[in-house]
Amino acid sequence: MAETADIKTPAGFLFSTAEASIKKPGRKDIALIVSEVEANIAGTFTKNAVKAAPVRLCMRNIRSGKGRVIIVNSGNANACTGKKGMHDAEKIAADVSRRLNIKPSLAYICSTGVIGTPLPMERITPALAPLAGNIGGSSFADVAEAIMTTDTFPKMVSRSIKIGGKSGTITGVCKGAGMIAPNMATMLCFILTDVALEKRALSAALKESVSKSFNRITIDGDMSTNDTVLLMANGLLGNAPITRSVKYFGAFKKALDEVTYGLSKLVVKDGEGATKVIEVDVKGARSESHALKAAFAVANSNLVKTAIYGNDANWGRIMCALGYSGIPLREDKTDIFFNGIQVVKEGLANNKDKEATAALKAKEITITVDIHSGKSSATVLTCDFTEEYIRINAEYRT
Amino acid sequence: MAETADIKTPAGFLFSTAEASIKKPGRKDIALIVSEVEANIAGTFTKNAVKAAPVRLCMRNIRSGKGRVIIVNSGNANACTGKKGMHDAEKIAADVSRRLNIKPSLAYICSTGVIGTPLPMERITPALAPLAGNIGGSSFADVAEAIMTTDTFPKMVSRSIKIGGKSGTITGVCKGAGMIAPNMATMLCFILTDVALEKRALSAALKESVSKSFNRITIDGDMSTNDTVLLMANGLLGNAPITRSVKYFGAFKKALDEVTYGLSKLVVKDGEGATKVIEVDVKGARSESHALKAAFAVANSNLVKTAIYGNDANWGRIMCALGYSGIPLREDKTDIFFNGIQVVKEGLANNKDKEATAALKAKEITITVDIHSGKSSATVLTCDFTEEYIRINAEYRT
Repeated sequence: MAETADIKTPAGFLFSTAEASIKKPGRKDIALIVSEVEANIAGTFTKNAVKAAPVRLCMRNIRSGKGRVIIVNSGNANACTGKKGMHDAEKIAADVSRRLNIKPSLAYICSTGVIGTPLPMERITPALAPLAGNIGGSSFADVAEAIMTTDTFPKMVSRSIKIGGKSGTITGVCKGAGMIAPNMATMLCFILTDVALEKRALSAALKESVSKSFNRITIDGDMSTNDTVLLMANGLLGNAPITRSVKYFGAFKKALDEVTYGLSKLVVKDGEGATKVIEVDVKGARSESHALKAAFAVANSNLVKTAIYGNDANWGRIMCALGYSGIPLREDKTDIFFNGIQVVKEGLANNKDKEATAALKAKEITITVDIHSGKSSATVLTCDFTEEYIRINAEYRT
Repeated sequence: MAETADIKTPAGFLFSTAEASIKKPGRKDIALIVSEVEANIAGTFTKNAVKAAPVRLCMRNIRSGKGRVIIVNSGNANACTGKKGMHDAEKIAADVSRRLNIKPSLAYICSTGVIGTPLPMERITPALAPLAGNIGGSSFADVAEAIMTTDTFPKMVSRSIKIGGKSGTITGVCKGAGMIAPNMATMLCFILTDVALEKRALSAALKESVSKSFNRITIDGDMSTNDTVLLMANGLLGNAPITRSVKYFGAFKKALDEVTYGLSKLVVKDGEGATKVIEVDVKGARSESHALKAAFAVANSNLVKTAIYGNDANWGRIMCALGYSGIPLREDKTDIFFNGIQVVKEGLANNKDKEATAALKAKEITITVDIHSGKSSATVLTCDFTEEYIRINAEYRT
């Protein structure tokens, strides 16, 4: 949230939002992102075998590596909607493309919301004229608002990067909240930059960055049908297009990582019903994949997450999750810390439960686990688990 | 619960319970099961790498295939307690064995409760004399009460089996409630029979039976450090010991399966905070392992379980879980039913949400998924997911 004030819009991107009353009337629920010029574009998508129609459309278009517009709606996921779903997505893309006089293959569509209900085209179609007719009439923050579903605040992160004498911008927006889990922990994320990057460099940067951010957060272990991250680079900064072999690639990558990690953390902070952000750091593993497995077992444990919610330094549940994570574990070599307070030393209680319980009252909790078996580590972000999550999800459609 | 009235105790088993004030005073929290004669015994144990001391002790003793007594305490799991934990478990086994004049290797110890706190030996040791001195002073139902933790009712199932002209008995007791997931979904289960079985037949019967019952239930996806199922056969029925090749093996197996499945269902019914039992049936899979994977993905989904709690026929969450289960899935071949009402036909909404919502008000919900890819099927039991689960687990130690 603190980040929102510093959001800069990269050169050459314009925005529009409109009301299509998709779920209910009274809010802007459809948004348009337009690059003034053809941009290079990279994307990563849900690995769920059940992919929403807009995801399949994006995956088809992204083969060209080129894009001009992103059209997003909230309130309906257009998933499990069969041939009509794909037809509807294509129709929206064609309609907006025609109005903007661009090739439909340069249009990317994203949807989020309820699964299994066809899009209300009778309300969406009439909204496309004002949407396409009002480009520049909305801000980036308006887009962030329009794509929210159960999110309680808009999520944006922005970074600057010096290239030669010029200052480029990387700015991302995402929505998250529930149904968040690897792979692709956010449902929808759009990152825009005016920095010029060669297509393969852009793809590689995004893939690596997502693997360390959105793919390392978990809220409820459910992986959505619609998860999409798109990164558009329109090159209007005018730098020589960055390839993987130039020094600026590292600088771009670093700034991009800050954007994706920052957005991931905002997603976790806004996990449905969450009151705390939990960072699970596993150290001393034989390999990064072992460290990740262990960290995810802890981060996905309902019992760990309810204990943190209840300010209970119940490290036994962490040991238990480590034990079933599937990695080799020496109980008598394992140390566990809550916000730096060591509660387990060589597998045994360290009698610091009182101090740890006090520390758990903080809003940001770090669980550090050292399994002393090697030199690899990994971090996973999650949130605590509360009655409010149940309420939100028991009543979502009612 | 309805089963409790019909519980028969197999010949030659005696019981005792005592108060050791392990977690708090005021209830019997330690129990003893004694076979009058040396029995054959089989067991299955948690696959968690972090195994409680009593589990390791049982695994050591069970190699002989012989047993006389089971000593159980609730209120403390004696897990993550290091060398002292093993020493304490051995001390209890030795103490009780001495009093009963049996070999300590015939004594099996089981503990359930909080992880990471040493057993309060100063209160347990004095309770062992009355425990061992009052054999026959308690009923099987008293044992069922003594082993409860967050369970809200005792869990027992009994079956009779005709062998030649004689009537044998198989009776089981278990505790469950939270931290229930495969493998070994119950924390503690003891099954007693007066039927004579040869050791290998006993082991095989238990292993197969557990794989179709306790290993097919899930409450919160967490696998405990203490899960133990023990099956004691003392042979006092006097039949010729059953081997795998005689016809009575099938009859015994059938009765045993009814006991383990019945107990599994009681565990799910008493899932922490649960208001409904959910049976997930996946049909039409290419293999049983595919069917199981898909069924577990649905049964472990917090989003599915909260929707059922909220009487919301939100089948999109089921499609989503099937999609990330990791099995090949043709969305357009998938059918989904709630208690027989078809909500999804060939991947699309069947417009029966109103009827399905009404059906979801029942206390027993069957989700049937037919993926039309083959002839294999599997069933997994779970429960709905409620605010009460969060409350119980946020406040467990406080």
